[in-house]
Amino acid sequence: MRYELYYWPSIQGRGEFVRLALEDAGADYVDVTRLPVRGGKGMPAMMRLLNGDSVACPPFAPPFLKVRAGKQVIGQTANILLFLGPRLGLVPKSEASRLWAHQLQLTIADWLVEVHDTHHPIAGGLYYEEQKREAKRRAADFITRRLPKFLGYFEQVIARNPGRGGWLVGRGMSYVDLSMFQMIAGLRYAFPRAMARLEPKHPHLVALHRRVSARPRIAAYLGSGRRIPFNREGIFRHYPELDV
Amino acid sequence: MRYELYYWPSIQGRGEFVRLALEDAGADYVDVTRLPVRGGKGMPAMMRLLNGDSVACPPFAPPFLKVRAGKQVIGQTANILLFLGPRLGLVPKSEASRLWAHQLQLTIADWLVEVHDTHHPIAGGLYYEEQKREAKRRAADFITRRLPKFLGYFEQVIARNPGRGGWLVGRGMSYVDLSMFQMIAGLRYAFPRAMARLEPKHPHLVALHRRVSARPRIAAYLGSGRRIPFNREGIFRHYPELDV
Repeated sequence: MRYELYYWPSIQGRGEFVRLALEDAGADYVDVTRLPVRGGKGMPAMMRLLNGDSVACPPFAPPFLKVRAGKQVIGQTANILLFLGPRLGLVPKSEASRLWAHQLQLTIADWLVEVHDTHHPIAGGLYYEEQKREAKRRAADFITRRLPKFLGYFEQVIARNPGRGGWLVGRGMSYVDLSMFQMIAGLRYAFPRAMARLEPKHPHLVALHRRVSARPRIAAYLGSGRRIPFNREGIFRHYPELDV
Repeated sequence: MRYELYYWPSIQGRGEFVRLALEDAGADYVDVTRLPVRGGKGMPAMMRLLNGDSVACPPFAPPFLKVRAGKQVIGQTANILLFLGPRLGLVPKSEASRLWAHQLQLTIADWLVEVHDTHHPIAGGLYYEEQKREAKRRAADFITRRLPKFLGYFEQVIARNPGRGGWLVGRGMSYVDLSMFQMIAGLRYAFPRAMARLEPKHPHLVALHRRVSARPRIAAYLGSGRRIPFNREGIFRHYPELDV
């Protein structure tokens, strides 16, 4: 295989943004921690790269991508997509377009941290139940102020895109659209009531989600066992008390 | 001028990471919001670009950089540095080195969000005093778990760098080192007690901070009125009750 993706095996998390790009492009890749330990893969393979002292450029955290040819290890979700985008044909060619796509991806990354912190506002190392009161306060602010701000921003980006195709960058679909699909899917899972109220104001984003999910390779992926279901271990979590 | 930097005029914030690169390179730039309104600059100039509908690629938030020649507007701190790095001679030439530098910069960006959230764990739109109890809990976790993890990671990156010059990437100083200088300076301001305890275990980072601050252009900048002092409006804030 050409690419090895390393990420926690039981959640979509940040790894999913990379998986969607690899899947849509039909890339030759393996999801290392979901392979058998006795074949030299699985979680031990990831922990060796994370904690071993053999790697000159160690990642701070998963996901990271190992490129077979160059023995390169690339970390940080948006950085992996910056690397993969041109190689998978998932971003326009000009430098300005690539910087713009990356800028949007970094804004999605910021948004994702805020989604995570709705259920973990105090510490990632504590359980949700240990910070539930604080989570209610933070989630309320997220839903009333931050979520509309992010949705409105990206809706406007599609509306202003001179490509006029309903995508975020240029005329065709890019990896940023795949990531936006994942945001909408995750937000619908985590905050169904808030999203039902907000979606009618954001028709471009709703249409983008629908068009991405209908792409043949994405549809096949979503129906396969390779797509890990949303759950209460991931970044997007459904706690009804936080969806006000 | 070649570059126009747009950022809030009264804090170092995220703009400082860009300023340090421009200053160290002796680049031809202006800090737009700190210039007079009657000359067409100042805060109104920034708000026009942020809220106007004339920009095809609108930034979500400051900082952003306007490049005079191409009329390009580039947002997201790490993305601005990705763009400026090669142009200012502040990153090695190979693609692998540039991705590695960017990966480290994105990890610094993640760290910075955690620093910010020590005093604003619930909402950026509320005052510190309205979330002080939650801030104490979050800051305690930051100081005992997250701060040592980030410091330890970057200390190890310098130690493993085959360039062996005491820098984070390659043989010479890069924009990532300038950003690391800013992290150490800010952490010393915000958490002097915690840093006094942790610094002896991180000699490479302490040496990096000292070497960056002694660079002629950086030393001149730090002594000038262009360097905004740390204060309680910025990302790094000193609240003694959070520095346990």
